[in-house]
Amino acid sequence: MLTPIRFKSDYLEVLDQTQLPHIRILLRIRSSEKLIDAILRLSVRGAPLIGVAGAYGCILASQEIRTKKLEGFLKAFSVKAERIAAARPTAVNLRWAIDRILALVFSQALSVEAARKIIREEALRIHKEDAELCLRIGKAGLPLIKKGDSILTYCNAGILATGGIGTALAPFYLAKKKKIPFHVFVPETRPLLQGARLTAWELKTAHISHTLICDGMIGSLMAEGKISKVITGADRIAANGDAANKIGTYSAAVLARHHGVPFYVAAPFSTFDFSAKGSKNIPIEERGASEVKGFRKNQWASQHSPVFNPAFDITPHELIAGFITDKGLIRPPYGKNLKKVLKARG
Amino acid sequence: MLTPIRFKSDYLEVLDQTQLPHIRILLRIRSSEKLIDAILRLSVRGAPLIGVAGAYGCILASQEIRTKKLEGFLKAFSVKAERIAAARPTAVNLRWAIDRILALVFSQALSVEAARKIIREEALRIHKEDAELCLRIGKAGLPLIKKGDSILTYCNAGILATGGIGTALAPFYLAKKKKIPFHVFVPETRPLLQGARLTAWELKTAHISHTLICDGMIGSLMAEGKISKVITGADRIAANGDAANKIGTYSAAVLARHHGVPFYVAAPFSTFDFSAKGSKNIPIEERGASEVKGFRKNQWASQHSPVFNPAFDITPHELIAGFITDKGLIRPPYGKNLKKVLKARG
Repeated sequence: MLTPIRFKSDYLEVLDQTQLPHIRILLRIRSSEKLIDAILRLSVRGAPLIGVAGAYGCILASQEIRTKKLEGFLKAFSVKAERIAAARPTAVNLRWAIDRILALVFSQALSVEAARKIIREEALRIHKEDAELCLRIGKAGLPLIKKGDSILTYCNAGILATGGIGTALAPFYLAKKKKIPFHVFVPETRPLLQGARLTAWELKTAHISHTLICDGMIGSLMAEGKISKVITGADRIAANGDAANKIGTYSAAVLARHHGVPFYVAAPFSTFDFSAKGSKNIPIEERGASEVKGFRKNQWASQHSPVFNPAFDITPHELIAGFITDKGLIRPPYGKNLKKVLKARG
Repeated sequence: MLTPIRFKSDYLEVLDQTQLPHIRILLRIRSSEKLIDAILRLSVRGAPLIGVAGAYGCILASQEIRTKKLEGFLKAFSVKAERIAAARPTAVNLRWAIDRILALVFSQALSVEAARKIIREEALRIHKEDAELCLRIGKAGLPLIKKGDSILTYCNAGILATGGIGTALAPFYLAKKKKIPFHVFVPETRPLLQGARLTAWELKTAHISHTLICDGMIGSLMAEGKISKVITGADRIAANGDAANKIGTYSAAVLARHHGVPFYVAAPFSTFDFSAKGSKNIPIEERGASEVKGFRKNQWASQHSPVFNPAFDITPHELIAGFITDKGLIRPPYGKNLKKVLKARG
């Protein structure tokens, strides 16, 4: 199976996603600074995958510190760990993974040797847990995939974005394994084209039947009855179920509603941000104009035209038929049913 | 003002639209074969503009024939005219312009000299009529443009597509002249990016306030109340008002309906095809995969992924608030109101 990240005995192997789908380069990363570079250059992308990468970066950092005194080691390590965390400040998973390792090593390490062991084991555990989370999301979504289904996804929420089989794409991998016949429609996802470059390639690699389309084709495909359901990922979900995801997701959700097509959001339960009551509490990042005026160095629009480039949009909970999570499929009413899951967790 | 086509005394001057917006090249076309090349290379595009170009191509063709005998001239001319008509078989306006010139020259010319004069005058008339048509569409649409409006268009239905001030963009030019403050949102229009390359540049050239966006951003802009109406063009309209236009138009129409935003279609009355009762009678052209996998030579998707690439989609008449035509603004019910216009025409 495709693996975007793997820790070898003394280096981190990372699939360079900037070169996909045309060139498959495995980067051998041997220092925490090189890992930061890889995150900045988007060789590693997708919030869960960045979290896993950051955890492995901590192993590399721990190997770079030469002192044999615990106090000095911990001081140097926390500086390096903070540098890694700062590589992508918006990736919640990165901060979370680094904090988890820092907390453990500061509270439990009795020697430099023990600290290195704790960091290594915790990083591997973070990766393993992310893979398990993906698998549980896949299992929660699998019953939704019926024989003959034709499912729209959006952006890339697959293997290339996580430490496992993805979130939105996880049910597809399990359905493929069960030999359920189904088809996936992949919108290219302008401006950064994650659908065209990553999802289509990922599905092709897994021999999952799919078709690449432009984002503007979603409506007419639905009008022709060619899409039976939608499954996308989410970057952040408010307490009422309003979900932020890649720009274009909301348009797909409205089109789904108009055509009576159920729209599902797949994400780890940790994506719910119970401090945000609704969509108004989710800030939307605006990105540079050159992304809309072209793709990378190929700039086809006039440099003088003003551009609007929000990275995300928000799908209100009313348009969402269910959340596919590692705690199972959560149906509306979300206020009540999310509380149930929280209690069961407690 | 920007002019994509102009007949000079002995050559045709054409703005090379393949080089826009970065380079502004005026092609001097001195033969009917060079004109055919320009149409094939998409230097001239937009059905009405291709019609005007074809008419001018007939002047060039008439100058290439050396015989002084009328019979021989007409025979040679009709061969050349048919070659021009075949340059873009799907452009109804091209066939229509060529047929109009052929019918006139065959029925009225008494000498080669007279034939050349008839062809020249008819070509100039076809251009002038197209410009007048655009102006009438603009006048019919002008009352819709209110102070502070923020209007979404789609693809390019402007000066660059016609022999005048466009169809969907015509009301904008008149509103600008009247100093009505308004703003235009321009979706890039994947896969061929006519919005990004042509409409944004055209509006910039005319100093009309606008913002370039990706097609997937339409929904969230509407949700934020940033779009007050939509005006697009149409390639063909059935007798019931179902309208075929560039792929993505239908998605915009559904999103407009969901957000209570009125959706208008601007087109010459001749775009109504009364032989097509409804959308089922409009065939949709499917184009090559490379358009979806990238843009021109920049192919970012895997060459192995299957692609769906319909060039047009159909917006059902129920989603259309009105047709902005050279015969005025036509409101629903379309069956009844189209008949009225047809009767008034005689």
